[in-house]
Parts: sequence; C-alpha cells; structure tokens
Amino acid sequence: MNDHRLFTILDLAGTFAFAISGAVAAKQRNLDLFGIVVIAYSVACGGGIVRDLCIGAIPPAGLANWRYLMVALVAVLVTLGAYSQVQRLNQPVLLFDAVGLGLFAVSGAQKALLYGHNAEVAILLGTTTAVGGGVIRDVLLTRVPVILQREIYASAALAGAVIEVGARTLGWATDWSPWLAMAVCIGLRYLSLQYHWHLPTYADSRIEKEPPVQ
Amino acid sequence: MNDHRLFTILDLAGTFAFAISGAVAAKQRNLDLFGIVVIAYSVACGGGIVRDLCIGAIPPAGLANWRYLMVALVAVLVTLGAYSQVQRLNQPVLLFDAVGLGLFAVSGAQKALLYGHNAEVAILLGTTTAVGGGVIRDVLLTRVPVILQREIYASAALAGAVIEVGARTLGWATDWSPWLAMAVCIGLRYLSLQYHWHLPTYADSRIEKEPPVQ
Amino acid sequence: MNDHRLFTILDLAGTFAFAISGAVAAKQRNLDLFGIVVIAYSVACGGGIVRDLCIGAIPPAGLANWRYLMVALVAVLVTLGAYSQVQRLNQPVLLFDAVGLGLFAVSGAQKALLYGHNAEVAILLGTTTAVGGGVIRDVLLTRVPVILQREIYASAALAGAVIEVGARTLGWATDWSPWLAMAVCIGLRYLSLQYHWHLPTYADSRIEKEPPVQ
Repeated sequence: MNDHRLFTILDLAGTFAFAISGAVAAKQRNLDLFGIVVIAYSVACGGGIVRDLCIGAIPPAGLANWRYLMVALVAVLVTLGAYSQVQRLNQPVLLFDAVGLGLFAVSGAQKALLYGHNAEVAILLGTTTAVGGGVIRDVLLTRVPVILQREIYASAALAGAVIEVGARTLGWATDWSPWLAMAVCIGLRYLSLQYHWHLPTYADSRIEKEPPVQ
Repeated sequence: MNDHRLFTILDLAGTFAFAISGAVAAKQRNLDLFGIVVIAYSVACGGGIVRDLCIGAIPPAGLANWRYLMVALVAVLVTLGAYSQVQRLNQPVLLFDAVGLGLFAVSGAQKALLYGHNAEVAILLGTTTAVGGGVIRDVLLTRVPVILQREIYASAALAGAVIEVGARTLGWATDWSPWLAMAVCIGLRYLSLQYHWHLPTYADSRIEKEPPVQ
Repeated sequence: MNDHRLFTILDLAGTFAFAISGAVAAKQRNLDLFGIVVIAYSVACGGGIVRDLCIGAIPPAGLANWRYLMVALVAVLVTLGAYSQVQRLNQPVLLFDAVGLGLFAVSGAQKALLYGHNAEVAILLGTTTAVGGGVIRDVLLTRVPVILQREIYASAALAGAVIEVGARTLGWATDWSPWLAMAVCIGLRYLSLQYHWHLPTYADSRIEKEPPVQ
C-alpha cells in the first residue's frame, strides 16, 4: 500500500470538507468574497500548518503545495454556487466539520509518524490538526469555540488519532485501519450531535442550572 | 539594488506603522503602559514571526533583532507623547494600519523569496505578514476582527503581494516595483475605507437587512 | 549546578500550576471532562510550544515528552478530585496562574539561552512562555484576556525574565538567582492582585471614569 498517496488524498479531502465548513460559516456572517476565501483557507489549512511547524516540515504543505489552495477555492465556489443544495443538507457546517475532523485526525497522525516522531507526538498532532481548523474559525468569527460545546468534539478526534497510531505502532495496520479510525471519529462526533451525547461534566449542582457558556 | 537593505527598511517602517496602530488601539482601551507595549509589539511583530516560523528563519527577526523592539518602543512613546497630534489625524488607527498593511505585504513576500521559497508561499506569507498583526490586535483586544469588516482588507494585502511577487518572478522587477505594490495595497485599503468600497457579498436577501457582524 | 535538571523541574512545576489554573477555569465554565483536559493542556503547554517553535526545538517538548501531558492530566485529576479544597484557596486560578507565570518566565528564558540564543530572545521568549498560556486560556474561553487587566501581569513576567537573563549574561548567576527571579515575578503579580497595584495609564481624563474593558 502506498502510504504517501493515501495520506495526500485524505489530506486533500479533509481540506475540502473544512473549507466548505469555513465558507458556509463565513457566508452566514455575510462576509465578502475575500473574507469567505480567507476564512475557508484558514479553517482548511490552519491545523495542518500548526502540525507542520511542530514536526519541522518547512515550508508547511498548506502554503507550499498549490493543491491545498486550489481545493479551498473550489470549495468556496461550490459553496457559493450551490448554496441552496449545500444548505438543504441538515446542519451542513456541522456535517462537513465532522468529516474534516475524522480525515485530519488520521492524516495528521500519519504525517507526524512519516516524519519519524513518536506515538505521543503523532496522537497529539493528529488531534491538533483536526481541532485546530474549527478553533481558528470560531476565534476569527468571534463565536463560542467548538471546544466549549457540550457535545463530543476533541475526544472524537483523539479517538481517531489513537486508533490510527495504535494500529501502526503495534503493527496491526492494514488497508482498512485508517478508514476504521476515521469512521469512529466521524461517527462519534456526528452521533453526539444528533443525540446530544456528552461526556460527564463536573459542575457543582448549584451551577448546573446556569447556561454552560456565556 | 540592494534587496536586503530595502527589505530591512520596509520591514522597520511597517513595524513602526503597526506599532502606532496597536498603541492607539490599546490606549483607547485604557490599558496600562505595559499592556500598551505588549499590544504594540504583538501587532508590529506577530505577523512577521508567523512568517519567519513558516519559512524556517529561526529565531524570528522580530525576536532576535533589537531594532524591531526598539522601533515598537519608540512608536509607543510617540503615541503617548504626541497623542493629541496622532489623534488629530482622522482615524489614526485605520491610517497607520493601512500603511503597515502595504509595507508588510511587500516585505513579507520579499523575505519568503529571499529564503528560496516559491511564488505561492511568498504571496500567501506576504498576505499573512500583513494581515496577521491586525488579527492578533483584534483577538487580544476582543474586538470584531478586521477580516470581518465589509471594507477591503485581506484582498488589498493580497494585491500588494501578488504585484511584488509577480514582478520578481516574471523578471519585471525594477527599483519602483515594490513602491507600486505598496501604493496599490495602501490605496485600495484607504479608499475602500473612505468610500465604503466593498467586494460583493453573497447573502440571502432575507439576511441582508441584518447587521453583518455581531 | 545541573542547569538542565533545574530547568526540567521548573518547567514541570510551571506546567502543573498552569494546568490547575486552566482546569479550574474550564470547570467553572462547566466544560466536559475532555474540554477540561484540552484547556488545561493548552494553558500548560501552549506558551512553551510557541517558545520551542521560535528557538528551533522541534518537536516541542510539550508534545514529545510524555511528562508534560502526564503532569497536565494529574493536575486535572487533582482539580476535579479535590475541587472543594482547591476552591478554598482564595482565588485559586489567580494564585496558580501567578506561580506558573514566575516558573515559566525563568524556565522559558533558561531554555532559550541553552539553545544559544541572545539575551533579547531569551527575555522576550521567557515572557512569551509565561504570558502565552493565560492568553490562550482566555481566548479559548472567550474571556477578557489577562493582558487587558489593570493589574501587573506581563510586566511581572518580564521582570522575572530580565533578572534571570541578566544574572546569567553578566556572570552573576548563582544557585539562588533563578529563585530570586521567580520570587520577584510571583510576588509582583500576587501583590498587584491583592493591593490592586497597577502601572500608570495614559487615558484622557474624560475617559477615565469609564470601565477600562468591555
């Protein structure tokens, strides 16, 4: 199996999914064409750029490889051109965000391993690659960050990264192990949104009645 | 022509302009002396530090070269000492921000090319150098980020970086091509503020009546 | 004296203090278990990761060395398990934040010097290591950043870094000079909170009656 090609395809697919999620969020805030492109590109490539800086992949692929910018631009055009179709998907931002989360958790972990780093670095940077885009989007759009939501988010990305890195470092990796890792991450995130699953909180009972975020 | 000296002068001038913009914004929020210095320095050097990390210029010039810190400190002193004069300029933060935008778009793109990176990296990092400071200022001051404003901002920086990188990679660079690139960027930004120029938005008609940002 | 061991101990102690501060802040926002871990780890390791990227220590210690993650996890468990005791400390987030500030200002400056960078880089990155965690916490939790508070914060970290770097570069370093640097930083920060010390502000008199931050 060609690891490098699989990694590239996953990374471009994640870029597309996150760019759609960023473009929809930016369009909902009524940004102009360029603002939409900037947000879509930041969401799509921000997490990967942080990962590449941390593993010493200079310059980061999101900047140096024209494919990432092209994919983000195509995602913006698709979002603007077919907005009514994109909107007809229920909660489109959340859906594409979940798909990007799973793809980036796996591809981010793979790239860190390819660069010779240990399992801990790969798990943490897989999670960072996955979570980074959404956090950047929410900080730039001055929204409540996804990490503060009650539903499962960072832990879904972590689960995907742990399965992928575990399979590889324990020698159990097969052609389908990356797909399993992605499916677990996307499934956890999407089901937690549908059924309002959430991890236990540790609030005092007197605080519990208050809204969890500002 | 001595590229390196031109690059240094542009970079210090952009540092001064952004530091003034940061100091005025911090003073308007009634921060103490150190808060003003921290914000001014972050705005002035933040974008350049991100650029240097991405092109592998370690340690970043903004940290290692005492001139940048000195320039930011002088800008703070000028702002505090001559605040009534600085204020008499109409919208001083916006004016100095526009000048810094143009200077950094060009100097950031030049530095990426000097380090041997390709045209795409140079254009994206020129834009990042230019936009980064203002975004950091607005995130730290919990203001609506400039990228969310309706007026032309990121696209002005992009135009400046594209002209500079285009002139150099196509062999058309002359002594005045950096100045043209800067003038286009600063002019686009400043005129868009004066005349409320903006790129097309793609809002649904029912949303358009609402304010574009929170 | 074994510099490297002292540096490691200081760094882990600062990690613990900042992780407690992050965990308490995240718990007060009613985040779930994973959200608390993510915030605690980001606060504890965010400043150090920025420092390591700037000095070329790839991969950053906070990612590659399992001790940092373990310390952050233990801090979360301590916070959740002994929350009533942690709460009984007056203003626990502020106290642990002050301790982390002092430890990181010194350990961050030491690491930059160990990597062969000059005094300016060491002072600026010591301050960044110290201030970074709190800024990241406040940006992620959408709170007013500590840098905007009236009390002494960044200047306390700067004082600690200047004393440590000054003692080393001037050849005055002794076994106790790092402890002096830390004590000055922690003392300045804590006393400024207790007695509402603050640096001069430069507001117009007509603005001074308004609240300093939004």
